[in-house]
Amino acid sequence: MSRRTKIYEGKAKILYEGPEPGTLIQYFKDDATAFNAEKKGTINGKGVINNRISEHVFTRLAHIGIPTHFIRRLNMREQLIRQVDIIPLEVVLRNVAAGSISKRLGIEEGEPLPHTLIEYYYKDDALGDPLVAEEHIACFNWASNEEMHDISSMAIRINDFLCGMFAAIDIRLVDFKLEFGRLYDGDYSRVILADEISPDGCRLWDMTTGEKLDKDRFRRDLGGEEEAYREVARRLGLLNGEDNSPGEVFDLSHARSRLRGPPPLKK
Amino acid sequence: MSRRTKIYEGKAKILYEGPEPGTLIQYFKDDATAFNAEKKGTINGKGVINNRISEHVFTRLAHIGIPTHFIRRLNMREQLIRQVDIIPLEVVLRNVAAGSISKRLGIEEGEPLPHTLIEYYYKDDALGDPLVAEEHIACFNWASNEEMHDISSMAIRINDFLCGMFAAIDIRLVDFKLEFGRLYDGDYSRVILADEISPDGCRLWDMTTGEKLDKDRFRRDLGGEEEAYREVARRLGLLNGEDNSPGEVFDLSHARSRLRGPPPLKK
Ligand SMILES: Nc1ncnc2c1ncn2[C@@H]1O[C@H](COP(=O)(O)OP(=O)(O)O)[C@@H](O)[C@H]1O
Ligand SMILES: Nc1ncnc2c1ncn2[C@@H]1O[C@H](COP(=O)(O)OP(=O)(O)O)[C@@H](O)[C@H]1O
Ligand SMILES: [Mg+2]
Ligand SMILES: [Mg+2]
Repeated sequence: MSRRTKIYEGKAKILYEGPEPGTLIQYFKDDATAFNAEKKGTINGKGVINNRISEHVFTRLAHIGIPTHFIRRLNMREQLIRQVDIIPLEVVLRNVAAGSISKRLGIEEGEPLPHTLIEYYYKDDALGDPLVAEEHIACFNWASNEEMHDISSMAIRINDFLCGMFAAIDIRLVDFKLEFGRLYDGDYSRVILADEISPDGCRLWDMTTGEKLDKDRFRRDLGGEEEAYREVARRLGLLNGEDNSPGEVFDLSHARSRLRGPPPLKK
Repeated sequence: MSRRTKIYEGKAKILYEGPEPGTLIQYFKDDATAFNAEKKGTINGKGVINNRISEHVFTRLAHIGIPTHFIRRLNMREQLIRQVDIIPLEVVLRNVAAGSISKRLGIEEGEPLPHTLIEYYYKDDALGDPLVAEEHIACFNWASNEEMHDISSMAIRINDFLCGMFAAIDIRLVDFKLEFGRLYDGDYSRVILADEISPDGCRLWDMTTGEKLDKDRFRRDLGGEEEAYREVARRLGLLNGEDNSPGEVFDLSHARSRLRGPPPLKK
């Protein structure tokens, strides 16, 4: 396993060469970063949880017809994915103002937006992932018009689906980030959903208490990040048994009633 | 004159109530600011030159069918304009990378863009005029879809016209900023060009020497800003005689040959 070819090591994941051409193994680390990696740390067990949550979400998105890179989960921290040519955009969907948009446009955190907003950030750590408009995307040819059309249609569907999925477990989907990539088939290519969907790239607020169940606990030093990530997995029915240790993450175990609640979290 | 009602005092201009309802008097100051007014200073005679250049440009844009707020110049520093409801967007057109886009997207200054880029900034000094995308404009209803269509069509025509006008006098139009406003006619409103077009809001580079003939001389402490503004007016045929003092600004005096060149400018 350690002799596999590492293709790329990012802030939260490692990509290894997959068993077949056109495949990769995506390994989920416990490393956490914030503010363009100015802040670094670890969230114990995060990689295991995110691997599992992302599997769950991508599988269900496939059921509604969203093409994704996900093939299957291999083990606790790894999943087999289709290799794509990543489109260098972070596609952000916002239902409620929080984080950078609150600062940038002076909107109070927690204020629902007049309608869902889709934003594009140019994925470039050295530049700090700057916000861009479709005009920049076209000018620098980061994605074609047709690709942008596919991306925005998929992103809007994904938002609706995830809003529903999280609403069902009393969580408000405030915002989240997506990445898309080009899957080649000869000369032809199509856009599919790539990367991951997990509390690392989502803002998830408990609908009743307003508690943050996402990476903002780490970004803002609120503590309880492990519990928050586990709580999301638990509500999604992905944890098994009283012992919520990462070792106990199994497929489709709907064991919510057997669980203690998580320790109380600061907002 | 000092008993007129002041409507608004901005960073570079003052608006007074006009002689008739629906009109305003736009007074051009010599005040110069940069970096969202963190840097302040004065450029001697700038107001006179900008009043004259803006008159010239708006008049010629009207000839190609661009509706503008300009009615007529009243005196050296003032022009009569139609009052509009300003759309809170700074519309920026870029032909060559310079300034914020170079920093933001890591493109070397002076590199021609693959094609003309139109950008929208939310006009709000307290927020530092942040870049926004059409999605934000729609979400917060800063302008309607139809208005954005009119704005972008006009902006592209204005860019083509100004590129030609400046090319004729050996100046490269690197980028510039426009503001538009709503002119009401009963229930109906239409979008017209407002504010000003002058070296305050344009990047103008001498095509041969690359010398900057715009506010970047002030922003970057290059010196010679008065001469640069005057040089633009001179090349446009708006200055009269050897004495380039602001007092000598007249209509349509094509007196280039009678002029000494301006003092040498730093790039
Ligand atoms: N299917 C895929 N094919 C190729 N690259 C992918 C795929 N899915 C995700 N990636 C890329 O793999 C990297 C995942 O690791 P991550 O730690 O998130 O990196 P980063 O620090 O660049 O965000 C990202 O750069 C992401 O764009
Ligand atoms: N025709 C017009 N009607 C109403 N307001 C206008 C018109 N043309 C320009 N303005 C506004 O008048 C102000 C001009 O003064 P300026 O010094 O440029 O102000 P600012 O510091 O706000 O940019 C700007 O706020 C501009 O939006
Ligand atoms: Mg990433
Ligand atoms: Mg202004």
